Amino acid sequence: MKNKKGFASDNYAGVHPRIMEAIVQSNVGEAPAYGNDIYTQKVREIFKTHFGKNIDLFFVCLGTAANVLGLKAAVKCHQGVVCTDIAHINTDECGAPERWGLKLLPVPHKNGKIRIEEIEPLLSMKGRIHSIQPKVISITQATELGTVYSVKEIREIADFAHAHDMYLHMDGARIANAAVSLGVALKEITHDAGVDILSFGGTKNGMMYGEAVLFFDRTLAQDFNYIVKQGMQLVSKMRFVSVQFEALLKDDLWKKNAQHANKMAKLLADNLKDILEINIINKVEANTVFAVLPKKIIPILQKEFSFYLWDPWTLTVRWMTSFDTNESDVVKFTQLIENSINNSL
Amino acid sequence: MKNKKGFASDNYAGVHPRIMEAIVQSNVGEAPAYGNDIYTQKVREIFKTHFGKNIDLFFVCLGTAANVLGLKAAVKCHQGVVCTDIAHINTDECGAPERWGLKLLPVPHKNGKIRIEEIEPLLSMKGRIHSIQPKVISITQATELGTVYSVKEIREIADFAHAHDMYLHMDGARIANAAVSLGVALKEITHDAGVDILSFGGTKNGMMYGEAVLFFDRTLAQDFNYIVKQGMQLVSKMRFVSVQFEALLKDDLWKKNAQHANKMAKLLADNLKDILEINIINKVEANTVFAVLPKKIIPILQKEFSFYLWDPWTLTVRWMTSFDTNESDVVKFTQLIENSINNSL
Amino acid sequence: MKNKKGFASDNYAGVHPRIMEAIVQSNVGEAPAYGNDIYTQKVREIFKTHFGKNIDLFFVCLGTAANVLGLKAAVKCHQGVVCTDIAHINTDECGAPERWGLKLLPVPHKNGKIRIEEIEPLLSMKGRIHSIQPKVISITQATELGTVYSVKEIREIADFAHAHDMYLHMDGARIANAAVSLGVALKEITHDAGVDILSFGGTKNGMMYGEAVLFFDRTLAQDFNYIVKQGMQLVSKMRFVSVQFEALLKDDLWKKNAQHANKMAKLLADNLKDILEINIINKVEANTVFAVLPKKIIPILQKEFSFYLWDPWTLTVRWMTSFDTNESDVVKFTQLIENSINNSL
Amino acid sequence: MKNKKGFASDNYAGVHPRIMEAIVQSNVGEAPAYGNDIYTQKVREIFKTHFGKNIDLFFVCLGTAANVLGLKAAVKCHQGVVCTDIAHINTDECGAPERWGLKLLPVPHKNGKIRIEEIEPLLSMKGRIHSIQPKVISITQATELGTVYSVKEIREIADFAHAHDMYLHMDGARIANAAVSLGVALKEITHDAGVDILSFGGTKNGMMYGEAVLFFDRTLAQDFNYIVKQGMQLVSKMRFVSVQFEALLKDDLWKKNAQHANKMAKLLADNLKDILEINIINKVEANTVFAVLPKKIIPILQKEFSFYLWDPWTLTVRWMTSFDTNESDVVKFTQLIENSINNSL
Repeated sequence: MKNKKGFASDNYAGVHPRIMEAIVQSNVGEAPAYGNDIYTQKVREIFKTHFGKNIDLFFVCLGTAANVLGLKAAVKCHQGVVCTDIAHINTDECGAPERWGLKLLPVPHKNGKIRIEEIEPLLSMKGRIHSIQPKVISITQATELGTVYSVKEIREIADFAHAHDMYLHMDGARIANAAVSLGVALKEITHDAGVDILSFGGTKNGMMYGEAVLFFDRTLAQDFNYIVKQGMQLVSKMRFVSVQFEALLKDDLWKKNAQHANKMAKLLADNLKDILEINIINKVEANTVFAVLPKKIIPILQKEFSFYLWDPWTLTVRWMTSFDTNESDVVKFTQLIENSINNSL
Repeated sequence: MKNKKGFASDNYAGVHPRIMEAIVQSNVGEAPAYGNDIYTQKVREIFKTHFGKNIDLFFVCLGTAANVLGLKAAVKCHQGVVCTDIAHINTDECGAPERWGLKLLPVPHKNGKIRIEEIEPLLSMKGRIHSIQPKVISITQATELGTVYSVKEIREIADFAHAHDMYLHMDGARIANAAVSLGVALKEITHDAGVDILSFGGTKNGMMYGEAVLFFDRTLAQDFNYIVKQGMQLVSKMRFVSVQFEALLKDDLWKKNAQHANKMAKLLADNLKDILEINIINKVEANTVFAVLPKKIIPILQKEFSFYLWDPWTLTVRWMTSFDTNESDVVKFTQLIENSINNSL
Repeated sequence: MKNKKGFASDNYAGVHPRIMEAIVQSNVGEAPAYGNDIYTQKVREIFKTHFGKNIDLFFVCLGTAANVLGLKAAVKCHQGVVCTDIAHINTDECGAPERWGLKLLPVPHKNGKIRIEEIEPLLSMKGRIHSIQPKVISITQATELGTVYSVKEIREIADFAHAHDMYLHMDGARIANAAVSLGVALKEITHDAGVDILSFGGTKNGMMYGEAVLFFDRTLAQDFNYIVKQGMQLVSKMRFVSVQFEALLKDDLWKKNAQHANKMAKLLADNLKDILEINIINKVEANTVFAVLPKKIIPILQKEFSFYLWDPWTLTVRWMTSFDTNESDVVKFTQLIENSINNSL
Repeated sequence: MKNKKGFASDNYAGVHPRIMEAIVQSNVGEAPAYGNDIYTQKVREIFKTHFGKNIDLFFVCLGTAANVLGLKAAVKCHQGVVCTDIAHINTDECGAPERWGLKLLPVPHKNGKIRIEEIEPLLSMKGRIHSIQPKVISITQATELGTVYSVKEIREIADFAHAHDMYLHMDGARIANAAVSLGVALKEITHDAGVDILSFGGTKNGMMYGEAVLFFDRTLAQDFNYIVKQGMQLVSKMRFVSVQFEALLKDDLWKKNAQHANKMAKLLADNLKDILEINIINKVEANTVFAVLPKKIIPILQKEFSFYLWDPWTLTVRWMTSFDTNESDVVKFTQLIENSINNSL
């Protein structure tokens, strides 16, 4: 087993040097555990410069936890969460939401996005004693298919949610990629667009570990410290999470990392767009490229570069780029693809 | 708010320099996520040199998770866990075990330890349909009171457990402190003594984050990867946990760290043992000192050094030492105590 | 509020006189609680004459519990249940399965039935750590749309399940209606067709309360008594459930009740089949008729007869018949429909 | 196996004839399911004459469910329930509370009762992030030891609970026995004494099945219908539960049944009080007698009369009486005891 280069996932990347440096520098002496330290105090203020003053902020270890616990804070035991059928919370958490009693109400996506006309029929469940009561709409930004909701699209979903006494939750594991894709500030696609709860991803954008949960509807945050603890996510040496977020949010590092990743995905897609044998599906708006490949060349490529066969039935592969993807690797990969196709003809 | 020095907890400490160095050095290029990397592969072998070849090993973020998920692997939904009334899993996890449906069956402790004669009456629950079925005995090593089970004591509990079709689980958040206190190898107080499941603590002994779950009864490990994922503990960039454990287990660092912490606790206790106004309770066998203090001096001391009032009813305080406790701080603290007492007379 | 006659549900009916008589006659003196009585002992033998000797049998109060607990017995916490999107367990249990950590994996139905080609893609989840592991296929017989699986269809699903290390669960709330529709014995569409776990419904076929859970794969029954208790379903005065089942299974009462209900549904459908303005959808194979009606006449009909508007978007209504539906009521209802349509033209 | 007479439990009894008659008489025609029937409408009013107008009322199948669901309505996921160590919810529900994430906080009892001085230390958990947050005090009336809280005792516990932002829950499986023991109305020991949630038992006082949950703090009842459904307790043919409660509450039947049961327990205890070899422990205030017997005679008695050996370590047995205990059986049992003792001397 050797660690291969590749396009398997943005969590195959390491830690951005400036974030690593921040970790090392904070390793001085003692600090109170569980967030009662000066580093955590400081980063709270930095978050406010990005998301506005009216937020409540919590850190957890992993993205699964950010989503599940954030959602749990918004529902009572008889209330459910509307999401797309391909939502990460529905397909990739091995039942973690259900462990917390969260019933998911999946609806069909279009280009990775949820659509209000698919949610509307669920409203007939409201007040019906046999039905779980829809209480949250959860969207993923950027979506699992690498597409990006516009500010207007989010606003419409938020308005719909609020009009029907529901909350809007955003799984922002790749929100940085979405924000730079749209060219907007983080606040514009969250607080300003009507999001109530946000999972703000760090790990996929250059951190070692650590995700944030932000509540724009602060009434939901009231007991969240206890939920984090019960969720087995209350980090003891929290300063090492806090300083990572500080480094990520300082001097636009979050933006630069995401811009680079997006640019590399765009480059890869552009390089391949004229090859007839390859079909790029889904618009490349963030840091993911989905392509349908000739069956024969997939194993040839995987010998040199790591990536996942997304859907074995349609021969769709997923290529992800990250802050540390090298342009030269994209070029090499492109050439390998071209050669493989030519050889296989 | 300033980060004060003190004796509040061994998780107020930072990261040992050799562990931090290992983290920095592993930050090179890509590595497959979720443990499929060469670092994790390597550390598995290192664990085997300490615990024997017949183990299954998993990493999680936090100690709460190591305990709860390890226990979950051993019980069906109608089975329960016997522990002491002061067990960390009973008092300090904010209901995390119950979130997983684990019913705890607390029995009175003696000096922090569980006693077989307290467990025996619970055997009458076996086969009774209205009763949760006792299936695991969980002990903490070193205990929550800083005492240490001898190898013989563990063996007896393990034999009792196995004789009654139960498992023995060990919360080893501070197992290193226990091992050096007894002067034995890690394998002697775990595998060799009959332990079936072990939470092996890293964070309290110099790591940044990360705990290990070891199964000596490997039938219990079969589905554990899924449980870790559902438990929201499957670390994506796992190499950074693995290299920490590698550094901790290499060149006896785990042992040196624990020895130093224990020595500092001993020193503190010894320094105070002749002060009439102070009553050291519980034998100081690991890195914790419990003392009953005159009420007046507690706030005076807390102005300079952080520590917890363990029991407000009896005026008992808890002082914990760690790998980075300075001998000079112990001396200063001792002098402050002496002066405070003299001034308050 | 007045109790209206109608076609709302087969649980609007009362108790069949012979079942009521059995209840009254068993109310003599004391009987051990929780099933340790002679009545329960006896009914176990009667069940064996219908389902074969190799069964384990348990009683619960309600159908929701029969399904959820029966499924729970078959899955570990990381395993899930495949069912149709309109399965009662998915749409009508208000999150009871998720309360037990059961992740449902809904697939599109066809005429109310599950199809193997919809299940096959889920097999790619097997062994993938991020995915819940499919372990049970749950079908409803008769289906939620009043259609009936043939013995061959069940056999094929069972074979598929077993070939992929899964169990077959049958929600048999209306299994009697299905059996008489097919003209087969209960054993033929359960044990003989490869069903592993059966919810055998009593309430909808003339009982007051009480459902049975049968395990044909008896390894699954091992701890089920405890699960029933934890599921808050262990009836104390169980004799009154047992004698109901005895009466239901004796002298073919279960069959006669179901035959009558099915006949009434058929009659209703036949009476309406020539009315152009009414569209009977779904084949009427059991005791349910689904029809699309002109919007105007629905409230007119509901003034006289109770029934549910099944789908407000398509104006589909559901009419259910039961053992105590009067033929004269069917005739009156038919006439009212005809008149309403004529008047509204 | 033969159904023996005896003193095993008040749920070995059958159904009171007047309750059975009410069931039979309500079996006329159709009635809407799930409580939307005229019988249920009517019994709501009858409950108000006993408990006051400001109540919310729900029915469930079993007492376990009444307790667990009633408690669930009062706690968020990070809040816990204080009860005695011998509380039925702690020892006899096979983990049903924990299935719902309820962490129980057992404290030592005195004569079966909870004491405020045992609860007070738990207040230090309030606001501590690692601790479950105590939110409900649950008491059992009459207690598991057959003793009865006075109105004043309940009032004091309620005041303590409310002063510390907690609710008072009463497990009233045998509240009728307590009320007649005290000679007070049901409202006096519930609503008037400060109880917020009540499980009102029917089965142990002459019903076939069915328990009620009453909320005096009506804010807790808001979502309870959904919780009942999720709890798999929403009875479809609910009229048959409602008419039982109607019969029980009409013409003081609840009182007469309980008075008789209590009288029989008193008679049994009085008959035995002069026998030196028998030690009646706990005051006989309701329908339970606890006695320590000579070891030899226990199996002799159990050959003729059913009862439980409560505590094998102390040779304590429990004898329960019910509405249908015959005075002649008490006399026969007394004589058998006397004879057995004389013979064994």
